[in-house]
Amino acid sequence: MPVTFTIPPLSTALSLALQAKIDQKTKPLGALGQLEALALQIGRCHNTLTPHLHKPCILVFAGDHGIVESGVSAYPQVVTAQMVGNFLAGGAAINVFAKQHGLDLWIIDAGVNADLAPHEQLISAKIAKGTQNFLGQPAMTMAQCLSAINFGADLVLQRYNAGCNCIGFGEMGIGNTSSAAMLMHCLTNIALSQCVGRGTGLDDVQLQHKLAVLEQALEPYGTITEPLAVLSTFGGFEIAMMVGAYLKAAELNMLCMVDGFIASAALLVASKLYPHVIDHCVFSHVSNEQGHQALLGYLNGKALLNLDLRLGEGSGIALAYPLLQSAVAFLNDMATFEEAQVAGKNTG
Amino acid sequence: MPVTFTIPPLSTALSLALQAKIDQKTKPLGALGQLEALALQIGRCHNTLTPHLHKPCILVFAGDHGIVESGVSAYPQVVTAQMVGNFLAGGAAINVFAKQHGLDLWIIDAGVNADLAPHEQLISAKIAKGTQNFLGQPAMTMAQCLSAINFGADLVLQRYNAGCNCIGFGEMGIGNTSSAAMLMHCLTNIALSQCVGRGTGLDDVQLQHKLAVLEQALEPYGTITEPLAVLSTFGGFEIAMMVGAYLKAAELNMLCMVDGFIASAALLVASKLYPHVIDHCVFSHVSNEQGHQALLGYLNGKALLNLDLRLGEGSGIALAYPLLQSAVAFLNDMATFEEAQVAGKNTG
Repeated sequence: MPVTFTIPPLSTALSLALQAKIDQKTKPLGALGQLEALALQIGRCHNTLTPHLHKPCILVFAGDHGIVESGVSAYPQVVTAQMVGNFLAGGAAINVFAKQHGLDLWIIDAGVNADLAPHEQLISAKIAKGTQNFLGQPAMTMAQCLSAINFGADLVLQRYNAGCNCIGFGEMGIGNTSSAAMLMHCLTNIALSQCVGRGTGLDDVQLQHKLAVLEQALEPYGTITEPLAVLSTFGGFEIAMMVGAYLKAAELNMLCMVDGFIASAALLVASKLYPHVIDHCVFSHVSNEQGHQALLGYLNGKALLNLDLRLGEGSGIALAYPLLQSAVAFLNDMATFEEAQVAGKNTG
Repeated sequence: MPVTFTIPPLSTALSLALQAKIDQKTKPLGALGQLEALALQIGRCHNTLTPHLHKPCILVFAGDHGIVESGVSAYPQVVTAQMVGNFLAGGAAINVFAKQHGLDLWIIDAGVNADLAPHEQLISAKIAKGTQNFLGQPAMTMAQCLSAINFGADLVLQRYNAGCNCIGFGEMGIGNTSSAAMLMHCLTNIALSQCVGRGTGLDDVQLQHKLAVLEQALEPYGTITEPLAVLSTFGGFEIAMMVGAYLKAAELNMLCMVDGFIASAALLVASKLYPHVIDHCVFSHVSNEQGHQALLGYLNGKALLNLDLRLGEGSGIALAYPLLQSAVAFLNDMATFEEAQVAGKNTG
């Protein structure tokens, strides 16, 4: 395999000790629900009874998609570059939410169809000025695909070396719900019509057109299921970089925060290469985009938030991040029954 | 009516202007889902296009329940007082989460069955050392009930005068899921068996016993539906104080944050007195306690979080609070399409 990582299952060495620590806190057993599972996962992932989230970071990968010329999106392609400008100017939702929670934010030009001016928050990694239109030809070459995966991995290594142990990946790319739907269909065998949604806001007629275009794009390939073949045929540069980013983060035992539909489709590809990448992942939210709920089900992912978000950018990650902090905080800072001299359950 | 507040519907004066402001932000229409509804509600509640949450605060009301002697709880009554000690020592979940988000925290002795030592964070308002066992007699007199309501209202007025415009109410009281189930049943007519749950962790046999006790307690009263009669017969002092607290907060156009099952039962009582109190309420979470989901449905409340919490203390409020901040932040700080020079939807 040309993509090589080492991703074993999460260690179980501390599982019992972590669970005991959780159960001794001054609350009824299990009363913090999903936060308790989260605390256990974070402790196992970072292999400690006293986890701390260091230098949390969101990488937003941006790329353009050739399929947009076939009329699958409600917004013109130029919006990808314009939104990168908005990210760099601090005006987008992800800026506001990342700032609120002290999350480091980097924007990566994975393949935007425009020349972007240098900026201290922008990382230039342009594979090409957008993918090819996959209605008729593969979106990218295998060499481009591998290059993007490796670049995503390198970026995560840089963040790790800077002290980050908790990272999330967002995206911006007009047309990328089409890519994500194709990846989901090919890799899960869920009907394409269940994978295709309204994206940024298609009406019923436009949605039917999008589905027809994607069905037509699928035809020449019959059933392809090899993850890298699927990714290079229907993916986007931003999605391929996210694949590499998840894999490297898992290899480094970082906690990975998963955003919405496109981010989950990238994780799906990564999980087909290395299934245990998912052990390191926290699913921040289930989005309003058709397909995401089914995709989370396929990945056995339980989302923290269900707020009908459908924005991407890593916005769901930023909104869910304080819940990760809460999980760590209760594990480290709550008193035990013994410390607080609180009586336990009635017996007999 | 001996309980008098002035609670009209929320003003619609700014609704259109707030929605227009939300829709001009650089995101697809509606893409921030429930956060957009929240931003609209907060703007209407505070009657401004630029809302800010000032001195957010949680009041935790503690009280004991006579019904505990009939064996309806998994924990002994002494835990109420012990947990108040834990709150004052900073070791409980609500301490950890309130500190995380900078929420002011006050503990109110509404009727704990113990003499509590003075503490700067403890407000002494003991109506009695626990309610009477409502299996055989009313939990409190009407005079006690009104006294508790008025005290809750006075406390909120004090917070308002200190600059708080966003307040939530938590509770601690061994046995109070029994009270809440009785209030819910009497005021919604939902079957008692649907209102009664495991509380802090009853097993199947104990749950059946709890239901049998509550059915027996209901018998002498037939159907009572007058809110204050129901509250004084089956309520708790901490619940009655919460009723007054919600009503005063709504009257003062404060934003109210609703916690779990018991807090929602108190709001139910308040809403039977003044239906528009609910307009001011944000439902922080839907809890794992049987009955809460149905109660939220009855109140038309859509919860922000669904994390299988069942702790009370206001813990769900504290965990959901950053989402309120996010709603305000995107409304105030995100760029518009025009400001960011981002193109709108395709036309034609």
